[in-house]
Amino acid sequence: MNTKRNVYLDLKNIDDARSVLFEQFGSITTQIEEMDVVDAKGRVLAEPAVASVSSPNFHAAAMDGIAVDASFTFGAKEDSPVTLEPGKTAVWVNTGHLMPESTNAVIMIEHLNIIDDISVEIEAPAVPWQHVRKMGEDIVATKQLFARGHRIDSYSLGALLSGGVFRVNVYKKPRVLIIPTGSELIDWKTAGAGDFPAGKVIESNSVVLGGLAQDHGAEFDCHPTIADDLSAIREAVSVATATRERSGKAPYDMVCIIGGSSAGSEDYAKPVIESLGRVLVHGVTMMPGKPVLFGSISGTPVFGIPGYPVSAIVVFEQFAGPLLLNMQKSKPVHRQTAMVSPARKMASRLGVEEFVRVKIGSVDGNLISSQLPRGAGSITTLTEADGILRIPKNVEGISEKEQVKATLLRPLAAIENTLVITGSHDNTLDLLADQVKTVNDRVSISSSHVGSMGGLMAIKKNACHMAGSHLLDPEDGSYNISYVKKYLAGQKVWVVNLVIREQGLILPKHNPKQIKSILDLHQKEGRFINRQAGSGTRVLFDYQLSEMGISPREINGYENDEYTHMNVAAAVLSGRADTGLGIMAAARALDLDFVPVITESYDLVIPNRFYHTPNVRVVLDTICSQPFLKRVNALGGYSTENTGKIVHRPESGSAEI
Amino acid sequence: MNTKRNVYLDLKNIDDARSVLFEQFGSITTQIEEMDVVDAKGRVLAEPAVASVSSPNFHAAAMDGIAVDASFTFGAKEDSPVTLEPGKTAVWVNTGHLMPESTNAVIMIEHLNIIDDISVEIEAPAVPWQHVRKMGEDIVATKQLFARGHRIDSYSLGALLSGGVFRVNVYKKPRVLIIPTGSELIDWKTAGAGDFPAGKVIESNSVVLGGLAQDHGAEFDCHPTIADDLSAIREAVSVATATRERSGKAPYDMVCIIGGSSAGSEDYAKPVIESLGRVLVHGVTMMPGKPVLFGSISGTPVFGIPGYPVSAIVVFEQFAGPLLLNMQKSKPVHRQTAMVSPARKMASRLGVEEFVRVKIGSVDGNLISSQLPRGAGSITTLTEADGILRIPKNVEGISEKEQVKATLLRPLAAIENTLVITGSHDNTLDLLADQVKTVNDRVSISSSHVGSMGGLMAIKKNACHMAGSHLLDPEDGSYNISYVKKYLAGQKVWVVNLVIREQGLILPKHNPKQIKSILDLHQKEGRFINRQAGSGTRVLFDYQLSEMGISPREINGYENDEYTHMNVAAAVLSGRADTGLGIMAAARALDLDFVPVITESYDLVIPNRFYHTPNVRVVLDTICSQPFLKRVNALGGYSTENTGKIVHRPESGSAEI
Repeated sequence: MNTKRNVYLDLKNIDDARSVLFEQFGSITTQIEEMDVVDAKGRVLAEPAVASVSSPNFHAAAMDGIAVDASFTFGAKEDSPVTLEPGKTAVWVNTGHLMPESTNAVIMIEHLNIIDDISVEIEAPAVPWQHVRKMGEDIVATKQLFARGHRIDSYSLGALLSGGVFRVNVYKKPRVLIIPTGSELIDWKTAGAGDFPAGKVIESNSVVLGGLAQDHGAEFDCHPTIADDLSAIREAVSVATATRERSGKAPYDMVCIIGGSSAGSEDYAKPVIESLGRVLVHGVTMMPGKPVLFGSISGTPVFGIPGYPVSAIVVFEQFAGPLLLNMQKSKPVHRQTAMVSPARKMASRLGVEEFVRVKIGSVDGNLISSQLPRGAGSITTLTEADGILRIPKNVEGISEKEQVKATLLRPLAAIENTLVITGSHDNTLDLLADQVKTVNDRVSISSSHVGSMGGLMAIKKNACHMAGSHLLDPEDGSYNISYVKKYLAGQKVWVVNLVIREQGLILPKHNPKQIKSILDLHQKEGRFINRQAGSGTRVLFDYQLSEMGISPREINGYENDEYTHMNVAAAVLSGRADTGLGIMAAARALDLDFVPVITESYDLVIPNRFYHTPNVRVVLDTICSQPFLKRVNALGGYSTENTGKIVHRPESGSAEI
Repeated sequence: MNTKRNVYLDLKNIDDARSVLFEQFGSITTQIEEMDVVDAKGRVLAEPAVASVSSPNFHAAAMDGIAVDASFTFGAKEDSPVTLEPGKTAVWVNTGHLMPESTNAVIMIEHLNIIDDISVEIEAPAVPWQHVRKMGEDIVATKQLFARGHRIDSYSLGALLSGGVFRVNVYKKPRVLIIPTGSELIDWKTAGAGDFPAGKVIESNSVVLGGLAQDHGAEFDCHPTIADDLSAIREAVSVATATRERSGKAPYDMVCIIGGSSAGSEDYAKPVIESLGRVLVHGVTMMPGKPVLFGSISGTPVFGIPGYPVSAIVVFEQFAGPLLLNMQKSKPVHRQTAMVSPARKMASRLGVEEFVRVKIGSVDGNLISSQLPRGAGSITTLTEADGILRIPKNVEGISEKEQVKATLLRPLAAIENTLVITGSHDNTLDLLADQVKTVNDRVSISSSHVGSMGGLMAIKKNACHMAGSHLLDPEDGSYNISYVKKYLAGQKVWVVNLVIREQGLILPKHNPKQIKSILDLHQKEGRFINRQAGSGTRVLFDYQLSEMGISPREINGYENDEYTHMNVAAAVLSGRADTGLGIMAAARALDLDFVPVITESYDLVIPNRFYHTPNVRVVLDTICSQPFLKRVNALGGYSTENTGKIVHRPESGSAEI
């Protein structure tokens, strides 16, 4: 194998890299095109829009009534009304009508005494120009309606048309060519229903970056995926950046090569750009996205974008997107920000700026963030995120007491209306998040998985609205209540059963090693996959081991842990472990074998101050509803006989409200 | 004329009216359609999206290097390295590759000592599963990716494709028919270059509401404009709401009749809905938008939307828009809000909820709002607004000391980066706002016209970054300096000349009454149009009168005033006045005659603490630039000989910084 590696140019920080980008390409704008205003929504004005007509372009009645010359009405009083004759000394008008010649005021119909078919009386004089929309009241011809650089929105269409601007000069949409590369990629159209070979990855980055290009006002084409083949990639980029003979302009305003931007032996983005043009930056001190690359080929900006989905998005939004907006002389989209408190201390690597995806919950009016996994390969860390924290490169971490600025991915109002469930993981929580939408689509549930003890600690720290927990008390075989009394002493909480579920050993299909119990696992030295410390399942496993007098050290793989039942099942499915403890629903989901070990209660722990809030009521109503119960029972491994049952109420003597 | 009027049903408040609307139509959703994920951006999921494959669907190398069975590496140390043979005890891999059979860890290429073509050495053991992306690390098959009701954005496309979801069930876009009505309306295509008859109004509402329908996830058709003709409107609405024989479904999900929703004799929306179905609400206690009307025809919601552009938008956004979103089971768009302080006391009418459009400036970190005109006919009050204050119906006004919540129409970050110029009006300020974009497109200028004295007061109250002023001191013929010293005593301010300009009498083309001077105006009893008190032009006019010994009461029309030069010119153009005092540029813009009266200095007054800020520097650089000077001179009536000249600097002894 070829071990030759490319070399990063000096790593640059984000601002410096962006300066290099804009120094090179900041003066490029797309061509200007003239189009009908009605087709120009979303476009950016390339020149100021100046009204050619006034609005209104005449004096108009602003009320229904009669138009008069105000001087005819002077002296009208209650005891000496003035009589007017429509058609002679007055004219009937409706709102919007042209004011008739030699009238300058409107008297509202409500203020008229209709005497007969030909005359009306008024008991007060009209002030000149009362209830008249004067010519040019909204727009005087020659008024500048919008400065250049204005993006035309729905409201703007009204001002432009009213001001007689029917055609506008706007910037063309920049055209982006997206070239996915990588021998491991497979097109979704050929991927079928999951039956594609192991080692293949569904190509999705081109669709995401295409969407983001649109979000930045551009159009895009997707090149068919190219394998890791230097000459094929070079050929595609060469064609895309070739100058057109006539116009002298490249057919694309930007080219994005996805994949192969790093310094590996099969990373061809750099050699391609080097051979056709010039590399400007390779490597930026940010994570995800460090292996970004960009250069210039025949004056066209060409990006090498790392293939991990989160890296690809961060790179696009930090560099390619702002450049596309700049080509239309438009400003970057300002995302809303908010100050948040991390639920726990966050470490960070010195020397790189980290983009940490976080969930954000609003509890007691405080915004609490909890971080999602940092892997750049995990697109769900972005789709599940409410916001992004940027930790500067010279900062080593953020403590729980600090307030940090989060860039929001969902509107603050939506975050504030989201119910935060923290704690143990159970598959029915996803069902609940979906089912609750059918009851009230304004309520959202955000659940994060930190284990049962983590959930109780989150309640103690006021960092969630409810916690999912299944902590066994070996003394009496009860669940959660003794833990609540011990760890949430003095806090008024309710405990409501969500489900009863079967925990057991998740095993490969047909159980090839014939593991029937934890004792079997121990005796046959099967490889185990554990759950993280603090999870109810870990507590259960440790209890089972101690009952049998087995030391954790005797379990092969005890030190390997996962955070969810589904990840335990995935570890078994992939052969990484022979078994792990988890819920039957997870085994069923991946068509694995299952040996029951125990039946346990999975409860929701809810502080009293939230128990009666509308959002919590919607959730509790939902879990008692037939459609939810039906869906839970269809999963397998669940009993809903206690679902919705209150198993613990706040004691009246508790200190806290 | 027919004086028969419709009658409003009981006026309802906004919440009650919306309740009626949702009680009637809240359960309607559009049909569900299945489509390719790649085409579904912007659509709303009608059912949960569940992954059918894991991502990755195999254990993958997460670094470039060699894949090994970690147990082969145990014991490796600096002084006793372990030798591995790629091809035998190790396998070369690149990031993303499938982990070869019986390997479970990757050693980064940077940590290898390459000995020769067949062997490498390592000086530390590998931990099992190091640098491996485990199967299902991002997505485990069967994971619920999104709950129903999720709107698919660019990021979502990546999660769906990665999870093997290639087709989705989404709600169809609701279809809206928009029917503009009104005999006064003229289509933009036939309006030509302003040469359409007086009394005609360019139809723009249908385009704006169509745009808003799209913004709410719907599609729209526009019906050709219908004159005020009961049977024609009824026919169109009847066709649009007729149920299809086969599907039993109306071809449109919503019909919006624009115009004729009020209670006038030619307001046909109500009789049309009454004759074909049932009116549910007529009249809501809000302004603008009070004459809104809606009802049900064959189960289809039909709106009567007032024809004033701001009313139409407010009504659509309060009622039609949320209903369209609800048809897709989507939530209303949450606009960002911010607390603002009114620059001056705001009156409000009891009994109606007012939507007051405001400009918002960020000065010294405080958000200051200044209200725009309240006329519902003025679309520019929305396009120029930064936000909307909603004043509840039981509140009579808001004092300067109150903080009130504004719904923002521009991102807060953009508002915070906007330079606020308050004070006298001059046409070159619009040029400046446009020209500054060519220098730095991140700087925006927001100017509001409150007269020269208003500008100085705004500086005193810290409500703007600079003020435009042209206040004549009759004592010595100087401009602004004596006023600054008097009204801004103790404040450190700079005064910089923007332009020298000609003020004079604006007169109808060919000056039919042959008014050559203010004395002529007085002697010929011409109708005058004045400027508002506190404006520099009013100060100038009053000074001229007193010099000539003429009392204001002797001037016909002295009590009629306008807020801008352009509106004075429009008053003359429309025949509302014979003349008014204003700048030559305004006369030139509307092709009117002009008799010069005086040459005056128009200066910018800038507090010292803003004078050196980057945004102010950009503005001052712009006004001295050749392109700006050239554009100013092209307007006519200006001299730029002093433009950019500092005419007053802060005195070193001033108290304030």
